Amino acid sequence: MADITDLSRTGEPGRAAATVPAPAAPDFSGWTCPAPLRDQEHIVMGHGGGGALSAELVEHVFAPAFGGPLLAGLGDSAVLRLGGARLAFSTDSYVVRPLFFPGGSIGDLAVNGTVNDLAMSGAKAAYLSCAFILEEGVETATVARVAQALGAAARTAGVEVATGDTKVVEAGHGDGIYLNTAGIGLIPDGVDIRPQRAVPGDVVLVSGPVGVHGTAIMSVREGLEFGVSVRSDCAALGGLVEAMLAVTPDLHVLRDPTRGGLAAALGEIAAAAGVGVTVQERSVPVPPEVANACAVLGLDPWYVANEGKLVAFVPPEHADAVLAAMRSHPLGAEAAVIGTCVEEHPGMVVARTTFGGTRVVDMPLGEQLPRIC
Amino acid sequence: MADITDLSRTGEPGRAAATVPAPAAPDFSGWTCPAPLRDQEHIVMGHGGGGALSAELVEHVFAPAFGGPLLAGLGDSAVLRLGGARLAFSTDSYVVRPLFFPGGSIGDLAVNGTVNDLAMSGAKAAYLSCAFILEEGVETATVARVAQALGAAARTAGVEVATGDTKVVEAGHGDGIYLNTAGIGLIPDGVDIRPQRAVPGDVVLVSGPVGVHGTAIMSVREGLEFGVSVRSDCAALGGLVEAMLAVTPDLHVLRDPTRGGLAAALGEIAAAAGVGVTVQERSVPVPPEVANACAVLGLDPWYVANEGKLVAFVPPEHADAVLAAMRSHPLGAEAAVIGTCVEEHPGMVVARTTFGGTRVVDMPLGEQLPRIC
Repeated sequence: MADITDLSRTGEPGRAAATVPAPAAPDFSGWTCPAPLRDQEHIVMGHGGGGALSAELVEHVFAPAFGGPLLAGLGDSAVLRLGGARLAFSTDSYVVRPLFFPGGSIGDLAVNGTVNDLAMSGAKAAYLSCAFILEEGVETATVARVAQALGAAARTAGVEVATGDTKVVEAGHGDGIYLNTAGIGLIPDGVDIRPQRAVPGDVVLVSGPVGVHGTAIMSVREGLEFGVSVRSDCAALGGLVEAMLAVTPDLHVLRDPTRGGLAAALGEIAAAAGVGVTVQERSVPVPPEVANACAVLGLDPWYVANEGKLVAFVPPEHADAVLAAMRSHPLGAEAAVIGTCVEEHPGMVVARTTFGGTRVVDMPLGEQLPRIC
Repeated sequence: MADITDLSRTGEPGRAAATVPAPAAPDFSGWTCPAPLRDQEHIVMGHGGGGALSAELVEHVFAPAFGGPLLAGLGDSAVLRLGGARLAFSTDSYVVRPLFFPGGSIGDLAVNGTVNDLAMSGAKAAYLSCAFILEEGVETATVARVAQALGAAARTAGVEVATGDTKVVEAGHGDGIYLNTAGIGLIPDGVDIRPQRAVPGDVVLVSGPVGVHGTAIMSVREGLEFGVSVRSDCAALGGLVEAMLAVTPDLHVLRDPTRGGLAAALGEIAAAAGVGVTVQERSVPVPPEVANACAVLGLDPWYVANEGKLVAFVPPEHADAVLAAMRSHPLGAEAAVIGTCVEEHPGMVVARTTFGGTRVVDMPLGEQLPRIC
């Protein structure tokens, strides 16, 4: 819990695992990683964690190779024009371990994760592609269970699986089932939701308790028992976003805090818009069973992945009505105001602690938990 | 080389590897697999081969789970309407081994394979998603080389990489790099290209020599030397299709004969449209070095994957002009008429041999060569 004046980045257990050396000079510009990729000769787990190492891979490897104006936000859904329509387009691969966990499965994740990426542009998901990479020898019944979960999740989310692909790799070159989905959806007229639109004065809301999905995965992966069972919050947020847009099309930013959790989502928005974010620590809802599990494991719930939550930056004049709309929706019943967007400390997220102090909320380097989605 | 009156399906070396028992009664209805999936408790390599086993997996596992009218042709690009536009949407994962081969790489395949799936609906690819599943420990320089190849192939094909994702799995749970791309493109007005539109009388064309890509992969995978080096034909066919559509929008069927080769492509069309196809054996262009390599390995070039070729079913009145347009394009310089669509033997492909006999061209069960794309 470093004070805002303490700029040391290292030495905090449970985040930014020290697989890379710390830099000589501290740097808080958000996306700039302290360990340049050019010093990384091999891929490490953290490159898939959605934190600073992932961002480095995009910045130094993928963006220069692919080029193009759309790729700046690789990992977000892209907004593009085709045949006169404004579309959102997004993809994610799913490598979660285990395939089934309390509250969901890789099939549910593959639908909800991509549907939610589209919803964060304000788009209603219309069509999904679905590609399986199967490991030779996996039980056909397991594939069928995953497919059924995926189909059921698609029907719940109101999205159609339109096209697909199957590949099989030799035993020992996969892990049962890897999935990829890509999704496309229409963005309603007048809607322009993106991280760059965050402005000082915006009210920051979260749709419910954080840290639930990652804790659920942990609870089964290592056979840990926390007394109280934690179920993943995995859900499709299209309906919740529709309810919010019914209040005003002028939502500034939506983000689903998946890999890297709440901390990464807020950090990315602050960096993208060049604004500061202050969060009231005690306003962030964390279920007691999640807090307990994280305490045991030395993790920080703010950095644990969610799969059925969103963060919203909303103009202050609409904040009360948007909050009320969220609370009227089953997936936003525990929505809360957690902070504000400020002019100070641009690119940085600062938490005001229960005792009146402040601390910097670092961007994670990688993921505390690999293969969480 | 069975005569058309000899209905035995088994015993032909080099295809339909006998991992499953043959049925009691022969059945030539094309897509109906002699080994029902319900007898297959585990996934085998053939389920990823694009032949009858893949089709069974779709029919018995994926289609019932996902439902929806679009999924009937899982593996094709889907044609859908969104915001008033008619779009093609397709996905493929790429698990080719090795990552680099003569004439291309997994990065080239990931662009050209998906661009070509869209082109087979007459669509010009506009945007791609791109998702990497990296194995922990793979060299960052290898990832960069693949990304650069992918970016260069996208620029050549005139398609933009719009969105992406990266996941990392532990060493021993991947194979360096797996890639997935999904693509969307606009279908021009008046174009309605799909396997069901094949009708008796259609002229069947192929855009060039077959069996090249698979032979190139073989030549490096096992360290085999065939005297003459075979380079993959991997290429994006959007421009060739545009040139063909400039002759007439009324192309009936286009298909890129990838996994399962020419035989699977023709068999799928025959089954989908309920028509017969006759092929003049000597009209099918097979490069001598491909024929030699296949002879050594006991493979049939008609079943070997291509990545830069297409098969077209064209109304007879347009056939000469379409053939001329293909031959005027660099990727169709060796285009040829190889057969006709007929009323006889619906669902079946029959080759007329050099010596005046006939033989049935079976659908492959799986792939002769796993991980070809």
